[in-house]
Amino acid sequence: MLHPARRDLYALVEEYFRNDFATGNELITEAVRRMLAAGGKRLRPRFTLLAAEAVGGRPAEHLRLAAFMELIHVATLIHDDVVDGAETRRGVNATAVDFGNRISVLAGDYLFAWIFKNVTADYAHPIPHVLSATLADITDGEVLQLKALGELGTSLAAYVGIAAKKTASLFAASAECGALAAGGSPFATKALRDFGTAYGIAFQMRDDLLDMTADEASVGKPVGNDLRERKMTVPLVLALEGGDENFRAAVGRFFAGRAENGERIAELVARIGAAGGFVKTKAVLRGYVERAQQSLAPLGNAPARAELAALADALL
Amino acid sequence: MLHPARRDLYALVEEYFRNDFATGNELITEAVRRMLAAGGKRLRPRFTLLAAEAVGGRPAEHLRLAAFMELIHVATLIHDDVVDGAETRRGVNATAVDFGNRISVLAGDYLFAWIFKNVTADYAHPIPHVLSATLADITDGEVLQLKALGELGTSLAAYVGIAAKKTASLFAASAECGALAAGGSPFATKALRDFGTAYGIAFQMRDDLLDMTADEASVGKPVGNDLRERKMTVPLVLALEGGDENFRAAVGRFFAGRAENGERIAELVARIGAAGGFVKTKAVLRGYVERAQQSLAPLGNAPARAELAALADALL
Repeated sequence: MLHPARRDLYALVEEYFRNDFATGNELITEAVRRMLAAGGKRLRPRFTLLAAEAVGGRPAEHLRLAAFMELIHVATLIHDDVVDGAETRRGVNATAVDFGNRISVLAGDYLFAWIFKNVTADYAHPIPHVLSATLADITDGEVLQLKALGELGTSLAAYVGIAAKKTASLFAASAECGALAAGGSPFATKALRDFGTAYGIAFQMRDDLLDMTADEASVGKPVGNDLRERKMTVPLVLALEGGDENFRAAVGRFFAGRAENGERIAELVARIGAAGGFVKTKAVLRGYVERAQQSLAPLGNAPARAELAALADALL
Repeated sequence: MLHPARRDLYALVEEYFRNDFATGNELITEAVRRMLAAGGKRLRPRFTLLAAEAVGGRPAEHLRLAAFMELIHVATLIHDDVVDGAETRRGVNATAVDFGNRISVLAGDYLFAWIFKNVTADYAHPIPHVLSATLADITDGEVLQLKALGELGTSLAAYVGIAAKKTASLFAASAECGALAAGGSPFATKALRDFGTAYGIAFQMRDDLLDMTADEASVGKPVGNDLRERKMTVPLVLALEGGDENFRAAVGRFFAGRAENGERIAELVARIGAAGGFVKTKAVLRGYVERAQQSLAPLGNAPARAELAALADALL
């Protein structure tokens, strides 16, 4: 259960998106508003606000900075639409579908630039530097992921390296910037950044797991979209670690060929499960959640710490 | 003729690109190096170095900043490849063709982020702010250009507004940042920025003109690529200002229909010329070159001023 004061705070972030957010370009403002209106848990803004609170700051003073973290995420999603040729995202028509690929590339670029323009005007060093380094990490991670597509030899360490850049870096930066903006000590700021990194890796692992298992209960068949895209997700990486050559050959055949066959995906997902992919993933994921919790130790007993810990627990 | 010291300085920029430039991502470093190796006049770095010199600085101290201006330009070209679906650019295989669209989007994003990461680490406010605002302007201008495609009612003022953002803002920023980095006075810095703006608008007008007239002498037929893309270039805008309804209807039919027919493009270009589009463009272009020259008045008789003036003259 959220504390009422915190619920009000999160409502203010939504209010910023609904009423105050506007760029200098109407078309792009509209596209971004539409993506924001489609929902999302706003985890990254929460990290910023909770980090500010955890170091003794007043989170209400950092709403805009918190909102920028979500907007960086939105800008990467807009570019993902172009990159992956996805038709829908978050249940609404993606920018790419509504406005065309050309506008999507420009809309993402404009949004990145607009965020940096504001951040460099309003926030002292090193916040603008942290955010640009984060964007470099996110993109670097995505490029590494593309290079690793279908690479059956991908190790857990390589997987974690990609997830740390692609996904965890923005959680880490969201927490770090909240702490920096609120004047947190280097020690507390590092603790919050470390929390974000461990959380983000666990978050990506959960995402990978859900892609293979989420719909199984309700629809009776897994989605397996990551497999279709030949992504080396953590359940697959860990299942392949078992060393079963028949299984490895089956994955190789799947990646080489008939990727559109739902039957074969269900079969492959079952084999990943049988090879221990899900059980092992849950164990590794739990390890990162524990690491995230431990990172928070330097923060003492601030209520914001308990809330961050609860967010990490929710990944299990 | 370039002064030998200045020629050496420009050679150092090339040396930086060839030997020192490297991002943390090999694939992207390679793609960017390839685009750089294909040539280009490095006008934007020259603006930075000349501006630093013009305010009394030592340009050799600002080589890296100068190189970043070219890299921002390269990043926009990489994204243009995705946006326009162009097959080649600058005479080499474009990043998009060699590595695929997905990598191009990411490569451009990564390069932008890498530049900002370095600029925010090494340069004081307001340089990072000027550069992020410039990137917002460039993208905003490109979105406005897309919205204006085929809009026969586009006025000269609207055209100039788009060119100022899309093209001139980076020339303006290149000059401004050189002046800022070298500790120029606000007065001199503004003069250099104004020069960049007027130069950039003239530069875009010349580019538009060359697209319709450049190959006519050598190949005997115009390229007219902008017309194929339904761009409202300045010769077309000015030709339409004449108010000839038959001509306007012909342009409308061309934009509505058979865009691939080379014959019809040649005919349309001839009609744009007959309607005064080229003569009027040259006059307006000359006005911006003169405005650029006048902007330099506050700089006194620095040799760098003469070089900037010569660059503007070269547009005529």
